[in-house]
Amino acid sequence: MMQRCLELARRALGRTAPNPLVGAVIVKDGAIIGEGFHPQAGQPHAEVFALREAGDRARGATLYVNLEPCNHHGRTPPCSEAVVAAGLAKVVVGMVDPNPKVAGGGIARLQAAGIEVVTGVEAAACQELNEAFVHRILYHRPFGILKYAMTLDGKIATNSGHSAWITGQAARAEVFQLRATCDAVIVGGNTVRLDNPLLTSRQVDGPHPLRVVMSRTLNLPEEAHLWQTAAAPTLVITEPGVKPEFQALLRHLGVEVVELSPLTPAQVMTYLYDRGFLSVLWECGGTLAAQAIADGAVQKVLAFIAPKIVGGSTAPSPVGDLGFLTMPQALPLEKLRWRPVGADLLVEGYLPQTQVSSLE
Amino acid sequence: MMQRCLELARRALGRTAPNPLVGAVIVKDGAIIGEGFHPQAGQPHAEVFALREAGDRARGATLYVNLEPCNHHGRTPPCSEAVVAAGLAKVVVGMVDPNPKVAGGGIARLQAAGIEVVTGVEAAACQELNEAFVHRILYHRPFGILKYAMTLDGKIATNSGHSAWITGQAARAEVFQLRATCDAVIVGGNTVRLDNPLLTSRQVDGPHPLRVVMSRTLNLPEEAHLWQTAAAPTLVITEPGVKPEFQALLRHLGVEVVELSPLTPAQVMTYLYDRGFLSVLWECGGTLAAQAIADGAVQKVLAFIAPKIVGGSTAPSPVGDLGFLTMPQALPLEKLRWRPVGADLLVEGYLPQTQVSSLE
Repeated sequence: MMQRCLELARRALGRTAPNPLVGAVIVKDGAIIGEGFHPQAGQPHAEVFALREAGDRARGATLYVNLEPCNHHGRTPPCSEAVVAAGLAKVVVGMVDPNPKVAGGGIARLQAAGIEVVTGVEAAACQELNEAFVHRILYHRPFGILKYAMTLDGKIATNSGHSAWITGQAARAEVFQLRATCDAVIVGGNTVRLDNPLLTSRQVDGPHPLRVVMSRTLNLPEEAHLWQTAAAPTLVITEPGVKPEFQALLRHLGVEVVELSPLTPAQVMTYLYDRGFLSVLWECGGTLAAQAIADGAVQKVLAFIAPKIVGGSTAPSPVGDLGFLTMPQALPLEKLRWRPVGADLLVEGYLPQTQVSSLE
Repeated sequence: MMQRCLELARRALGRTAPNPLVGAVIVKDGAIIGEGFHPQAGQPHAEVFALREAGDRARGATLYVNLEPCNHHGRTPPCSEAVVAAGLAKVVVGMVDPNPKVAGGGIARLQAAGIEVVTGVEAAACQELNEAFVHRILYHRPFGILKYAMTLDGKIATNSGHSAWITGQAARAEVFQLRATCDAVIVGGNTVRLDNPLLTSRQVDGPHPLRVVMSRTLNLPEEAHLWQTAAAPTLVITEPGVKPEFQALLRHLGVEVVELSPLTPAQVMTYLYDRGFLSVLWECGGTLAAQAIADGAVQKVLAFIAPKIVGGSTAPSPVGDLGFLTMPQALPLEKLRWRPVGADLLVEGYLPQTQVSSLE
């Protein structure tokens, strides 16, 4: 049943920011009598949809929900009250609220009303589904994902900067899917100049992320796919007072322009946190990727490895200077996983949070 | 039974050059009555050991052998005759002899004597076990394996050249094992200067490979682990007339010195072929690795990938310039496989033989 909650919750991937992904299932006599998920901020919570569907039959039933029901008046009334009012007998919770100030409050309210509460069911899967939300709550920053595609000899382009394509169609389709689950995707000016990317989720059934360009100089082409904002929104972030006329040109094309000082990944992440973002995908070159890692703006790394050898003594690699002189200084990835994606290999892991904190 | 043959054959890994790895099993009434493997050149073939053990009981029995029995007088008499003389009823062969001039000759001799012959049993595994021998026979060169260890961001060292250690103990132990199965391991002068490697098979139960240094300048340190030849032999290959005094110093230390012109990977492979080598392991840096690939001296790539991020915009990567300007020129690896080795990942694949030929 908890797996079903996660399945329901996932239907809103990429649409709930700043809220978590939540699915709820109400079961009575072994049959599902109500289901729901939280579709987006401002809309009712998952429990409310499930309770609505169950109606009077909810009395004495069991509610499964992947995140502790809320206990506070936000844009919607507290779910804990709705659960108590519906007369549920038991609530099975995947994980408690990550916010230390409120954690356990919803559960306590249910228990106070005499409802049996079980917690920690499929906890690891629940934590992973909402890892971006948890990070946002704990660190007041969106969750950062660094994604890159490289050849088996560690290149993200040839000596001359050519990079189309490193991976096959299956891997690229997976990247479209990934973009649809993220609130923003960030590149630097160099990627715009060299690759002229679209950065949309393309054919995938999901929202486009906000496409973000970090450019200190605004030395950017006047025509670029990213300036075509009918398809998807674009935000250019630069430093105060840089090239006002080019800024005006961008705004005229529908591109949002924001000035931040200093223009660092940390500053950009704080800004995107304030905009309510959960997850941010770094699809930049090695220089910006290294700055983002050093700034603690990357929590997870997704490395697509194409089984080919391209060579190149000056060909760029995925991560630029981190200032490490010896190999033991390298940042180890945790919770490593890999799987084939078409003919390519996807390696995933997390940067150690302590290490990231010490870099911040 | 063919798997048992391969198991037996593997006992001589790294010791049979220029001969293949062969194991033989004789079965009668469901029981093994004789077994053997070819231990090294000059020693009897696998079939002979198995026939000796079986003795008179071999009459009417079945012989399993991973490679077609030989039909020519070499340093030992032909196995086909011995099999006929022993009165075997049936012979099961893993693969036919790769040499187009003799392929099928042994089988024809057996069939002419009225023995039933089955071929192609576990053919893929048999081909792989003797891939180096097959390559040697078909291309008149040893089989080349390029092995490297890199971080997940594609670096084989830090910006400053530091590389100890990229992978963990399990991966390094696997490299010792790999060296024990190869006849030579090659590095360039830069690796000697920077890493001062041992290049032995260390604690592994197996022979040390011949340690080969390619150096055009002989600009090498006077003291190096590789010059300690009591542990394992070392060969330095340079161009004619380079630094005769340094050559004398090396020879005085027991290091073999050979002059080749031009000093290219192709030339070195031809020289090592003439010495009877089956397999050669390239453990060099990116510059020499690229030359070896371009020269068709690499058939198989073994990439150990350590799940860590070290960064470095000038950090070296595993393969230097191949002259490719666009990504579609990259050499695709075939028959890709991957598996975890300790905390690291090993990706294996073959360079396309046609591509390699066209580069030659």
